Amino acid sequence: MRLGDHVLALDIGGTKLAAGVVSRAGDVRSFVRTPTNVEEGPDTVVKRLLDLGRDALAEAGHGPEEMAAVGIGCGGPLDPVSGRVQGPPGLPGWDDVPIVDLVSAAYDRPSFLENDATAAVLGEHRYGGWGDVRHMLYLTVSTGVGGGLILDGRLHRGAAGNGGEFGHVIIDWRGRVCGCGQRGCIEAYASGSSIARRAAEALATGEPSSMRGLPAVTAETVSTHAGQGDPLARRVWDETTAALGRAVAVMVNVVEPQLVILGGGVTRAGDALLLPVRHAALSQAMRPAGAAARVELSSHGDTVGVVGAAASAFRYLDDGEPQ
Amino acid sequence: MRLGDHVLALDIGGTKLAAGVVSRAGDVRSFVRTPTNVEEGPDTVVKRLLDLGRDALAEAGHGPEEMAAVGIGCGGPLDPVSGRVQGPPGLPGWDDVPIVDLVSAAYDRPSFLENDATAAVLGEHRYGGWGDVRHMLYLTVSTGVGGGLILDGRLHRGAAGNGGEFGHVIIDWRGRVCGCGQRGCIEAYASGSSIARRAAEALATGEPSSMRGLPAVTAETVSTHAGQGDPLARRVWDETTAALGRAVAVMVNVVEPQLVILGGGVTRAGDALLLPVRHAALSQAMRPAGAAARVELSSHGDTVGVVGAAASAFRYLDDGEPQ
Repeated sequence: MRLGDHVLALDIGGTKLAAGVVSRAGDVRSFVRTPTNVEEGPDTVVKRLLDLGRDALAEAGHGPEEMAAVGIGCGGPLDPVSGRVQGPPGLPGWDDVPIVDLVSAAYDRPSFLENDATAAVLGEHRYGGWGDVRHMLYLTVSTGVGGGLILDGRLHRGAAGNGGEFGHVIIDWRGRVCGCGQRGCIEAYASGSSIARRAAEALATGEPSSMRGLPAVTAETVSTHAGQGDPLARRVWDETTAALGRAVAVMVNVVEPQLVILGGGVTRAGDALLLPVRHAALSQAMRPAGAAARVELSSHGDTVGVVGAAASAFRYLDDGEPQ
Repeated sequence: MRLGDHVLALDIGGTKLAAGVVSRAGDVRSFVRTPTNVEEGPDTVVKRLLDLGRDALAEAGHGPEEMAAVGIGCGGPLDPVSGRVQGPPGLPGWDDVPIVDLVSAAYDRPSFLENDATAAVLGEHRYGGWGDVRHMLYLTVSTGVGGGLILDGRLHRGAAGNGGEFGHVIIDWRGRVCGCGQRGCIEAYASGSSIARRAAEALATGEPSSMRGLPAVTAETVSTHAGQGDPLARRVWDETTAALGRAVAVMVNVVEPQLVILGGGVTRAGDALLLPVRHAALSQAMRPAGAAARVELSSHGDTVGVVGAAASAFRYLDDGEPQ
C-alpha cells in the first residue's frame, strides 16, 4: 500500500460515533460504530472516538502512520479552518472543542474537520457512482436535518462557509416550533427526534395504535408500524414524507439540481421514505426544474458519514484548500 | 460612439413594457414605458414593444444599426437558446412566441432573450455598484415573484436552465393556493396581485378600513394605507413582509448569499418593505448564514428590467454563451 492511498475517517454524530479506514477509490476497508453518550461530555466522547479510530485501524490491519490523513465529519456549527466544533445542537457542551488538534495529536497525522453534511455531499459526488453530475443536493435526515450542495461540480459553501442549512427550510410558518426557535422548519417534522415526538403527541391523545405500550417509540417504530397499517403511525409517517417532499420541492425550485440524495438514519426506511418523498417533491417542484431532477437514496447507507469524511480529507490533501 | 458600446434593451412584463438604450458601462441613455394590455394578445403587444424600442432609440438619438445587439427580458418559462417565450403565467396566450426572431427581423440586429429575473440579477451584479460579491440572490416582487442567482461570481442557471423559481418557495404548506396549483408559495402572499387579492378578501368581511370604497385596491394602495395607520391595510402589509422575510430566510439558509437584492414593482414601497423584510429574514435565517448576508433594494428601481436585459445582451456578446 502506498502512503497516501488511505485515510482514517471519523464521524461524530449526536447518537453514534463511527470510524473507518477508506481508500482513495472510496472503498471502506473497515467500519466500526458505537453509540454517542452525549451526557458524558466532550472529553469522554472524544476519548471514545479516538479509541474507535484505533479499532478501525486495527480492523483494517494498519497503523496510524500508514494513513495519509484523518478526516473528521461533525454536525455544525464548526470552523473548518481553526478545526473547532462550535456548539452543534446535537452535541450539548461542545461549545468550542479543538477537535483537529486533539485528533492530530492522538494519531500524529494531519487532520481535517468538515461539516458532516458537507462531507456527505462530497462523498456522494466523489464515490456515489452517480456519473458526471454538475448540480447535486444532499439532504441528511437524521437526529437533525442538514445538507450540502455541489454546484457546477464544486462544493458550494456559501458566504458564511458552513454549508446549506437545509433543516431550516420553513414549510409552515405558523407550524411547529423548531429547536432553532423558528416555526415550521422541516427539521421540526422530519428529523428522527421530531418524528418520535410527533408520534408521542399523537399517542398522548389516547387514540388506539399498535405502537401503544411500547417501551420507546422511535422514527423506525413509526415507519415500521405505518407499513403494518397502523392508522396513527401511518398519519405521522405520511406527514413526515409530505413535509420532506415539500422541502425538497422548495430546494429544487431554488437551486435546480440534477440530483437530490437523501441520506441519514431516517432513510433506513428505504422505499417507504423514498417513494412518497420523490413523488411529492417532483410533482410539486415547478417545471422545468422538477422535470430535470432525480431523487435517490444515498449509495452509502450507514457508512455515508465515514465515506464523506474520507472524501473531505482527500479533497484537502489534493486541493490544499484552506477552508 | 464605437459600435458595440450600446444595446437596445426591451423588458416585457405582464403589466408594463419598457425599453431603453443602455451603454456598456450600464448608463441608461433613454428609458420609455407603456402599459401591457395582455388582452390584446401577443401579436399586438409585440408590435407595441417594437414601437417602444424605436421610441427609446429616438430618445437616445440613435438608429438601430448603431446598437451592438438587442437584449430582451421576459417572464419565464422561455427558452433562451431557441429564443421563444413559452407561456409565462403573466402573459396569457404567449404559448410559443419566437420573440428573438421577431425582434431580430424588426431591427436587423442580433437579439438575445433572457428570463427577466435572471437578467435582473446579471444587471445588479454587473451594474449595481455592490462591489465584488461572490454569491448574490435577486428576488423580484412584482406581478409575480421570481429571482436569479449569482454563485461564485457567475450566473447559476440550474439543471433545467431556467433560473431559480423563487416565487414557489413554499412557506405555508397548508396555506393559500398559488397560481401554480400548490399551496403556500411566497407568490401567493407577496406578489402585487396577491397583496391586492388578500386586501380585497379582508375588505369583503365588512371590517372598517380607509381603503373601503376606493375604485381599485392595489399593492401600492395597501402599503400607503398601512403607512397611514389603517389596521386592515397594516395587517395585510405586515403579513406580506413577514411572508417575504420568511422566504428570504429560507433562501439564505439554502444558498448562503452575501447579498439579497429585492426589486420589482412592489419594492417601490421602499423602507416600508425593506426594513421589515430585512429584519425578518436576517433574524430568522440560521447563523452564521444570516449574519453574513445583507438585504437591500435594487439599485435600479424601475429601470432594473432594461438594465438587466442590457447586462444579459452584453454577456452574450462577450461570452458568446449558447444558453
